[in-house]
Amino acid sequence: MKIARFIADGTVRAGVVSGEVIREIEGDVFDAWDYTGNVFRCDDVSLVAPLVPRHVIGIGANYVATSDQLPPELPDIPVFFFKPSSSVIGPEADIVIPSGVGEVKFESELAVVIGKEAKSVSEEDIWAHIFGYTVANDVTAPQFFHPDGHWTVGKSFDTFTPLGPVIETELDPSLVSVKARVNGEEKQNSPTALMIISISKMISYLSHVMTLQPGDVILTGSPVGAELVGPGTVIECEVDGIGTLRNTFVAAKAPAVSLRQG
Amino acid sequence: MKIARFIADGTVRAGVVSGEVIREIEGDVFDAWDYTGNVFRCDDVSLVAPLVPRHVIGIGANYVATSDQLPPELPDIPVFFFKPSSSVIGPEADIVIPSGVGEVKFESELAVVIGKEAKSVSEEDIWAHIFGYTVANDVTAPQFFHPDGHWTVGKSFDTFTPLGPVIETELDPSLVSVKARVNGEEKQNSPTALMIISISKMISYLSHVMTLQPGDVILTGSPVGAELVGPGTVIECEVDGIGTLRNTFVAAKAPAVSLRQG
Repeated sequence: MKIARFIADGTVRAGVVSGEVIREIEGDVFDAWDYTGNVFRCDDVSLVAPLVPRHVIGIGANYVATSDQLPPELPDIPVFFFKPSSSVIGPEADIVIPSGVGEVKFESELAVVIGKEAKSVSEEDIWAHIFGYTVANDVTAPQFFHPDGHWTVGKSFDTFTPLGPVIETELDPSLVSVKARVNGEEKQNSPTALMIISISKMISYLSHVMTLQPGDVILTGSPVGAELVGPGTVIECEVDGIGTLRNTFVAAKAPAVSLRQG
Repeated sequence: MKIARFIADGTVRAGVVSGEVIREIEGDVFDAWDYTGNVFRCDDVSLVAPLVPRHVIGIGANYVATSDQLPPELPDIPVFFFKPSSSVIGPEADIVIPSGVGEVKFESELAVVIGKEAKSVSEEDIWAHIFGYTVANDVTAPQFFHPDGHWTVGKSFDTFTPLGPVIETELDPSLVSVKARVNGEEKQNSPTALMIISISKMISYLSHVMTLQPGDVILTGSPVGAELVGPGTVIECEVDGIGTLRNTFVAAKAPAVSLRQG
């Protein structure tokens, strides 16, 4: 089932995508919901991000180029980071490159949406806590990485986390590839088998650190091939079975960020 | 005005603390609210965290020991980090030391609560976006810091962000000191004048990165003197004019976190 959020008649609504139409739903998408009976043509509405995440949690450097590069041992401490929910945008929205920075990096990713509270859950049992999957673009301005290794500022700008187009609730994540195209040219295309820390391992680990809640979103890492791009670039992130998340990079009009600003 | 959240008759309520009583309020604490007419004696209720934060944003290493150590220039990129809202607890709740770790660090901090959306706001104008101030303990397990400098896991465990006891809306943050006592012995006590990046500078900077929203909480850094402590330790974090946030450290019963777990 494909869950979307969309704007129709000036209102943000949720619905189930079925072919060329969206059947509107109401209620808690993670718990109890019903069809309203309203049906919209996909062509008549604008999709927004398929959820407003509670937390957005990313994992760093989680793909190898080929399976013979998979390390014999997993790291002691994985590189996790948070992105603020204020950075989330939906399909077709512009990604704003901060002032003073010419280019930023795209990173196409498979994103996991938690549907059921998870606290200290084993790898085997974690699947029951996953609601579904969407596509994410973990946009990054490495110029704002701190020299001591803190990525927070470089990952947190408004518009830096496109999500969508839908949440697919019936995906087998072991069978899909994560892709990106820049102005139509393929730049990323890797099966999830090239992840270093698997989806079940990373979410089980996280659940032993923090209680995961419905609406938490975990970005599972980006395949090799991410690049810096500038204003005017059209980026399409795609995962088989979910769809394509398309956005355009634009230059900021806001003033640059600096501790010396007035 | 001191805003608290508390449990009475099994229900979480909000109220205004006035001497020995709390006058219950209803509505949006950041916008429009009214007194319900219910009044509770402080002694009869249990305080919980004074808000459920939208984001918790911390800043690293932001105090010097003496004013002559203040650096002549501010850094290019401040060290910001996020803590998940799942890590928030209130006064008197236990701080759980993760399995496999004998001790964790306390860090007493002045916490700023945003009350009004702030996007690219100047240092001079940022004060109008601040709702009030509370006390935070930025509990940290440095054993879970990644060697490349990522602090996320070490800062994100459940119970690692005590907040409270109240939000004081009328504080002048330039006039207060941030203190901590371990089992009654003073370990931290510094005026906010010893901050390297001032409150107005750090929040203005953040507002140029991400749109701050009501309920976002910024932890403004911890004075020198933070230490590792073990189970049974009573920690009291205090800021003049707000109050004392007391918690006890206990050992975890849950299994240890590891990528090699079953």
